[in-house]
Amino acid sequence: MTTTSTAILNGVDVEQLVGTINAIKDDPEIARFRFRAETEWVGGGHSQTTIQSFYGAKQEDASRTRPFVLEGDEPPVLLGGNAGPNAVEAVLHALASCLSVGFIYNAAAQGIRVDSLRFRLEGDLDLHAFLGLSQTERPGYQGIRVTYQVKSNAPREKVLELCEYVQKTSPVMDIVRNPVPVTISLET
Amino acid sequence: MTTTSTAILNGVDVEQLVGTINAIKDDPEIARFRFRAETEWVGGGHSQTTIQSFYGAKQEDASRTRPFVLEGDEPPVLLGGNAGPNAVEAVLHALASCLSVGFIYNAAAQGIRVDSLRFRLEGDLDLHAFLGLSQTERPGYQGIRVTYQVKSNAPREKVLELCEYVQKTSPVMDIVRNPVPVTISLET
Repeated sequence: MTTTSTAILNGVDVEQLVGTINAIKDDPEIARFRFRAETEWVGGGHSQTTIQSFYGAKQEDASRTRPFVLEGDEPPVLLGGNAGPNAVEAVLHALASCLSVGFIYNAAAQGIRVDSLRFRLEGDLDLHAFLGLSQTERPGYQGIRVTYQVKSNAPREKVLELCEYVQKTSPVMDIVRNPVPVTISLET
Repeated sequence: MTTTSTAILNGVDVEQLVGTINAIKDDPEIARFRFRAETEWVGGGHSQTTIQSFYGAKQEDASRTRPFVLEGDEPPVLLGGNAGPNAVEAVLHALASCLSVGFIYNAAAQGIRVDSLRFRLEGDLDLHAFLGLSQTERPGYQGIRVTYQVKSNAPREKVLELCEYVQKTSPVMDIVRNPVPVTISLET
């Protein structure tokens, strides 16, 4: 009895990944996604975000039977009640979660087995602009430092090369490193 | 018996807010913050972010007795298992949660009572770059649209003015709209 080779690597269905890439090559429309969130203010610094539906692969997704609910709040030193991480901490989560997906999916596509992967992130922020005390400081992060540890069957050089590729193709790395147009309008 | 005026507006301790601003005017060091996150890959598209400590107001914060744990994952159409919202959805959460804090704190500082506040966000993203199928499309959002509804004691004009100010001083709006330098390095 021979073991049939599995198409799952790093928890990723490589056949589905290749199938998705080929489907998009045939029909670019499949690649167009629209993601959504609704956020309701609860009180003080506390808000609650609900995430469920999105459009992609030419249809409304129906895979989520219940919404994800994310809490946002400030710590007491920033006048909040610690009901959740704050908004700039959520940015670090978004960035690392994106790098993780990119690393794992691309490793799987290249036949690299990953045994463990961990990211540590730090961002420096000066409150002067947020509090209206400076027109020259920026309100957001002055810089973000990411370090990562990985155990895999790939040599260090291959890991570094993969990381370069992941950075170039990561949606959230792009959003953080480059300008994204945002419109905001009051509903009547 | 007279009612003493409360210093709490919109759930915000206005005296603490003014006190914080004055303390920073006296000692700019207080405004320097360093936020952190640690993200561990779980399997496939699934990762888990732990957020607890940060540095700010000249000390390590000790207010959080337990870490916040945030799940990140992809939906099945993007080869995940829906263990959490994905990374670009987390960006929408971060942005709205930041706008909410900015709106509420600045309203409180200006004496505007907010009764309700809700944001809806949509972002358009094309998967070609993430999947290595395009060098010209960007990996991240092509654009984000935010709409908001607010009930308050302020006239529409004042709300729009407040919203302009919030956009200019919002850390996450700055991070999304403008470039942030990110370094990434492999730990040995």
